[in-house]
Amino acid sequence: GAAAVFLCLSYTQMYGRYTQELGVYAKEEAARLRDGGVRDGGGLRRSTSVRSRAADLLEYEKDPCAKCQLCASRCQKFLISRVGEDWIFLILLGLLMALVSWVMDYAIAFCQEAQKWMYAGLDSNLLLQYIAWVTYPVVLITFSAGFTQILSPQAVGSGIPEMKTILRGVVLKEYLTFKTFVAKVIGLTCALGSGMPLGKEGPFVHVASLCAALLSKFMAALFGGIFMNELRNTEMLSAACAVGVGCCFAAPIGGVLFSIEVTSTFFAVRNYWRGFFAATFSAFIFRVLAVWNKEEETITALFKTRFRLDFPFDLQELPAFAILGIACGFGGALFVYLNRLIVECMRKQKTINKFLLRKRLVFPALVTLLISTLTFPPGFGQFMAGQLTQHESLVALFDNRTWCRQGVAEEFDYISHHHAWKHPQVNVFITLILFIIMKFWMSAVATTMPVPCGAFMPVFLIGAAFGRLVGEIMATMFPDGIHADGSVYPIVPGGYAVVGAAALSGAVTHTVSTAVIVFELTGQISHILPVMIAVILANAVAQSLQPSLYDSIIRIKKLPYLPELGMGHHEKYNIRVEDIMVRDVRFITLNSSYRDLQEMLLTGQLKTLALVESRESMILLGSIERLQLQSLLSLQLGRQRRLEYLRQLAQDNGTQDHLPSLTTDSTPSSPCTHTHSNTSTNTNARQAVRFLVSTQQIAEWEEQQLDEPVDFKNCKIDPAPFQLVEQTSLHKTHTIFSLLGLDHAYVTSMGRLVGVVSLKELRKAIEGSVTVTGVKVRPPLASFRDCGNSTSVSEVTELHKLCIRHRGLSLPREPNPPDVEELFCQYNIFFF
Amino acid sequence: GAAAVFLCLSYTQMYGRYTQELGVYAKEEAARLRDGGVRDGGGLRRSTSVRSRAADLLEYEKDPCAKCQLCASRCQKFLISRVGEDWIFLILLGLLMALVSWVMDYAIAFCQEAQKWMYAGLDSNLLLQYIAWVTYPVVLITFSAGFTQILSPQAVGSGIPEMKTILRGVVLKEYLTFKTFVAKVIGLTCALGSGMPLGKEGPFVHVASLCAALLSKFMAALFGGIFMNELRNTEMLSAACAVGVGCCFAAPIGGVLFSIEVTSTFFAVRNYWRGFFAATFSAFIFRVLAVWNKEEETITALFKTRFRLDFPFDLQELPAFAILGIACGFGGALFVYLNRLIVECMRKQKTINKFLLRKRLVFPALVTLLISTLTFPPGFGQFMAGQLTQHESLVALFDNRTWCRQGVAEEFDYISHHHAWKHPQVNVFITLILFIIMKFWMSAVATTMPVPCGAFMPVFLIGAAFGRLVGEIMATMFPDGIHADGSVYPIVPGGYAVVGAAALSGAVTHTVSTAVIVFELTGQISHILPVMIAVILANAVAQSLQPSLYDSIIRIKKLPYLPELGMGHHEKYNIRVEDIMVRDVRFITLNSSYRDLQEMLLTGQLKTLALVESRESMILLGSIERLQLQSLLSLQLGRQRRLEYLRQLAQDNGTQDHLPSLTTDSTPSSPCTHTHSNTSTNTNARQAVRFLVSTQQIAEWEEQQLDEPVDFKNCKIDPAPFQLVEQTSLHKTHTIFSLLGLDHAYVTSMGRLVGVVSLKELRKAIEGSVTVTGVKVRPPLASFRDCGNSTSVSEVTELHKLCIRHRGLSLPREPNPPDVEELFCQYNIFFF
Repeated sequence: GAAAVFLCLSYTQMYGRYTQELGVYAKEEAARLRDGGVRDGGGLRRSTSVRSRAADLLEYEKDPCAKCQLCASRCQKFLISRVGEDWIFLILLGLLMALVSWVMDYAIAFCQEAQKWMYAGLDSNLLLQYIAWVTYPVVLITFSAGFTQILSPQAVGSGIPEMKTILRGVVLKEYLTFKTFVAKVIGLTCALGSGMPLGKEGPFVHVASLCAALLSKFMAALFGGIFMNELRNTEMLSAACAVGVGCCFAAPIGGVLFSIEVTSTFFAVRNYWRGFFAATFSAFIFRVLAVWNKEEETITALFKTRFRLDFPFDLQELPAFAILGIACGFGGALFVYLNRLIVECMRKQKTINKFLLRKRLVFPALVTLLISTLTFPPGFGQFMAGQLTQHESLVALFDNRTWCRQGVAEEFDYISHHHAWKHPQVNVFITLILFIIMKFWMSAVATTMPVPCGAFMPVFLIGAAFGRLVGEIMATMFPDGIHADGSVYPIVPGGYAVVGAAALSGAVTHTVSTAVIVFELTGQISHILPVMIAVILANAVAQSLQPSLYDSIIRIKKLPYLPELGMGHHEKYNIRVEDIMVRDVRFITLNSSYRDLQEMLLTGQLKTLALVESRESMILLGSIERLQLQSLLSLQLGRQRRLEYLRQLAQDNGTQDHLPSLTTDSTPSSPCTHTHSNTSTNTNARQAVRFLVSTQQIAEWEEQQLDEPVDFKNCKIDPAPFQLVEQTSLHKTHTIFSLLGLDHAYVTSMGRLVGVVSLKELRKAIEGSVTVTGVKVRPPLASFRDCGNSTSVSEVTELHKLCIRHRGLSLPREPNPPDVEELFCQYNIFFF
Repeated sequence: GAAAVFLCLSYTQMYGRYTQELGVYAKEEAARLRDGGVRDGGGLRRSTSVRSRAADLLEYEKDPCAKCQLCASRCQKFLISRVGEDWIFLILLGLLMALVSWVMDYAIAFCQEAQKWMYAGLDSNLLLQYIAWVTYPVVLITFSAGFTQILSPQAVGSGIPEMKTILRGVVLKEYLTFKTFVAKVIGLTCALGSGMPLGKEGPFVHVASLCAALLSKFMAALFGGIFMNELRNTEMLSAACAVGVGCCFAAPIGGVLFSIEVTSTFFAVRNYWRGFFAATFSAFIFRVLAVWNKEEETITALFKTRFRLDFPFDLQELPAFAILGIACGFGGALFVYLNRLIVECMRKQKTINKFLLRKRLVFPALVTLLISTLTFPPGFGQFMAGQLTQHESLVALFDNRTWCRQGVAEEFDYISHHHAWKHPQVNVFITLILFIIMKFWMSAVATTMPVPCGAFMPVFLIGAAFGRLVGEIMATMFPDGIHADGSVYPIVPGGYAVVGAAALSGAVTHTVSTAVIVFELTGQISHILPVMIAVILANAVAQSLQPSLYDSIIRIKKLPYLPELGMGHHEKYNIRVEDIMVRDVRFITLNSSYRDLQEMLLTGQLKTLALVESRESMILLGSIERLQLQSLLSLQLGRQRRLEYLRQLAQDNGTQDHLPSLTTDSTPSSPCTHTHSNTSTNTNARQAVRFLVSTQQIAEWEEQQLDEPVDFKNCKIDPAPFQLVEQTSLHKTHTIFSLLGLDHAYVTSMGRLVGVVSLKELRKAIEGSVTVTGVKVRPPLASFRDCGNSTSVSEVTELHKLCIRHRGLSLPREPNPPDVEELFCQYNIFFF
């Protein structure tokens, strides 16, 4: 009885459905067995299908270390024929993503138009107008939040932090499902359609990654093998990130660079072309759709600027650009801080927290109500261009006319939303300053709402407004330009807006490639030097004050990401692996029994287990994945074995014809037994068996099976798991983990397993909690490696003793060394 | 006698002066001893100075593996205060490089002006004019070749292949010296001043790296410690590469990307900003100098284009751009092939080879003569715009006017070298085709000359001409543009020229970032989509046909670089480390004597030696650098020990006052003995010693010292050298070597050293010579790792046997395992 329940449990764990209820699963499993397993009486096919499903799951849920270890052998298969498939895949991905983003853009524009139409239609009654203005976004945001919450809570937020974690090698399964895709696309469309200060760049990266993951699965289902490779999927995901950014701004080069900067630590240059190709293709299709839709005459930039080419800026304006960059650096750091502060504040305040947990939709509704009330055009919104959408505001801010002196009107032929910035009573400077301040905190608050949204675009907009403000001030100060020679080249405040936008978004995301994004976005590269200078200065300032927005979210969400080793953390370099490793390693030995295996699987949660030679020698032989062990266990206790046993029993008892009977039936208390008797012969046979085979016998058989030693012959063993030695420094460990995308590494001393270090320990050590909780920090230069001339006396003495002792031991040239254990101890000293 | 000579030899080797003659060295050493060592009688200071010099050398010549191992401890020191110094260093580097490149540009322009002036002044006599036209470049090139040859042959050629190798971690010492800097700068100025089709991009990368290396040394001499770090220098070198490209084209972003693509395999994103900052600063200064020199009014692009912004190209022109890209891909591959063919041809032809080796300056002179004769403007040059420099040609090719229909004259106000392309009798198409064909082979030949030169710019020019040709053809075919609607948008052949330039240079160098370079170079980004499409297609074609030009040169020069693992090399994935490793590892044991050490140092050339526990167990304890061992040996047999011995001898013989005597004096036959007796007391003392201590005694003492076991207490041991197991696949080995920049790795089996794999073996294996020379190639899926369900019968049986055997052995639970050796053998089977 209990054994069968356990088996169900073990099956459940085997398939990784931790969240699903046992009963549901048992029913499903029973139905499946009824359909497929009973038919031909031989359990062989059934058992291989279990194996292959386990293998599928393995393929799917494989941990990054094993991936690294196993990839080579798999590469062999797919590298041969992959090149062609890569191109096709990337083209499909680009096409799909372009279509998705174009449709979304269309829907968002439609939503915004609808709001404007409603607002304009009700201009007779201010109250009705206000209600329409406010209700519309509240409904959209609440719907977006609710829909996302119900369908897939993983779709909330930007998605870049999660992609960064996934590309680091951590499996966040739920983040790449079809449900999440639907939730993200619909949620994002509603959220952006509401006109709140939210961005689409981060979510687009996530959507593109979702597209790539789903496309991979689809292709794998259609064409098999090649598209199942883990390594390949990671490469495709990193290309997809580029596609996401590229599509969002029609900026292929900037997209590739931004996605590299944001998601990678070490970038393999050989994957470069993938991102470029997919992003270019995608941006191309995205713009072609606009041309075919008669929105544009030909393929042009999204926010096309028309600054003069001859003399875009003067050399003497560069200090102003530099100051703008530095100010944006401070602003960016402040934004990240503010965003984190809001989240942490809400978390800490228990009453708020409780309330928010109970009524999840109240918070976004309240925030939306507040923001839309403040932007209501006849109200406060008139002082901050509240009626404009983000797109319209940007077009206006990048305009090449100067606002404060209406005189200098250069010819231009596109619709400007210029008038919204003019208020009859209020100076344009006041409007701009109000716009910047209000949008700043609004964006910081709005991006904490539980809807799919990013922060790049709002920050970009704020930066543009700030740049425009500086530009207008400059234009007022130098109405005829700075140039000393005869010709008058007036200052272009639009150029400052471009510079400010690049600098502030660069500061918030800690990237330099926003510079490239603005060039592609505006279609002009004339301001390259000011943009580069401002972006670099903004980055320098922001990076020294705060983490990037994405790293900040990673910390808030406590995602399993390895933080960068900071500069100036002196004490970090004295930590060795032995200070942080877990000494109580879970392992199995060559002579473990299945019972040990079962116990190990029931108690531990590690994805891979170390295989050592024996409990005494502890020599590390390799590592085995949990799933492999589960399948070993299920093979031992599984259907086929049970059938064999029953056959055996039946033979002993003289009856021959009850083969199709199911072993799981033998325990009446199990929930997965009573549903699959649909043919009368089956029922008869089972009853016969039930008569013959008592529960007692089954239980005994199970006990007996569990006591047998494990047979590893059908089990994939990774013979070379990554090993460190005890004195490997934290710095080196960090580099190796980052480079190779490891999840854990075993610590060995002369081949003996002494500990294990996983990402968790490493993270703790880097974040400093280790030093607090009492790890001994070595004094600098205390270790043997650094001794040189400055070796401390005690060490030298000890080493000397060892050498002498060793010589004494080995000089007599005994045929076999005295004692392995003793030797190991000796060399532990030698190695410290 | 012999012992002292040996000591000299061993000193010589210790300081790495393999090329210096023994006698010269002995004299120097004697002089040094006379100056410093004799003074205070105690040998202590002398011996520490030997130690510290050895340490300096170690610092300088350290092999990359040790670098990787040791960096962590050193990071600790410099990370704390490095941030500020980094900025200063990068600013200095940018400033220096901008100045160097501006001065060089100035000198080159002057050279070219001089030739033009001479040519124009002699227009009365055609013969004189021809002689002037031809002699001038021949003299310049010959001087450049000779100067480079004499001063530093390392300055020849592009420099990018060498930088790629250096950044990979291989130490090419001579490539980063001051001599090379001078040779490269002057040689390049002359070579480019000659007007030959040579480029400056590659050499600029080298020059910038030289600047960085020299600046590092200078700063190290000035401020010490921080600037000596090896890791830091590598980071700075990679920033310098970006500066080089950035300065060459005033293209900071393109420079950074190009240098990453060209020099890196795995790029650390955290170093990104360095390159951006330095390149931006450098490009900024470079352009500011032009403004101050009144060449430009403000900072603009180098080859500024003025294509219309409204409708730069039609969607229907994209197929033409795609075809242009594909054709450029084939062209690029052909160029690389042709270039290699010429070099290999000259090498194989023995008579040519011998002749060239004897008269090194004849080849460049002949090539120059040929090329300049063909470009002589009144001769054949009139059909191929021979009178234009590269810069002038590019300006003309990027012109926004259409050449074949003179009618469409848009307003433009800069000097065009348009007329050179018009020939009264010959069509502009013929001129362009002749230009392309002639320049193609001329560039391929010219870049093989032994002068500092690159191939990027000539290829860029050919691409521009080819693009212009396609554009002109398009313009002839569709005189009113392709656009279907009412408005006429004529085709812009200049846009095709830009696309062609990017595509061909991208194809030759296998980079995508040439796209970004052309945007920065022309100051316009309007053609982004055609450029991206053409560059990606050109790359796809070229990469499938030929290696990049730089990889091709790496192969020709046989630089120690790890080739990329190609696609579709099926058999490569079945090679394991055990197939390629060197089994005869040189090692020392804990109980080695100094004699073993000496023998090892005299016979082997490896930079690091493995330290194993004993010859029997072969358990790998760590690795020791050669220099460390040399210093150990010199400590044992060195001055201090000799002095002590002499003191001892003197005490035994009753005399007390001959301490300052030099031990090396004791052997009259040694060349380093008879020069340093300048004070009479010394001479007397020495004579006294010579009386007391016979040569016999010294020799005996030396023999006795050599027989002592090595004392490792003063020796840095790397306790965790990189280890692989025998069955690590070639693919994984390659990845690890690339990622970690390893030079060699030990192969262990259960802690026992069984082999060593170095870059050499790996390269051989990848390049396929291994499979030829009889390494067994495993059938796919034959190894244990891949077994799964498909394990072959023999393997299963063997494993099964092992398991049973092992259980049999360990079930009785003996307190100590039966036999270590036997166990090792067992697990070798287990691991295969």
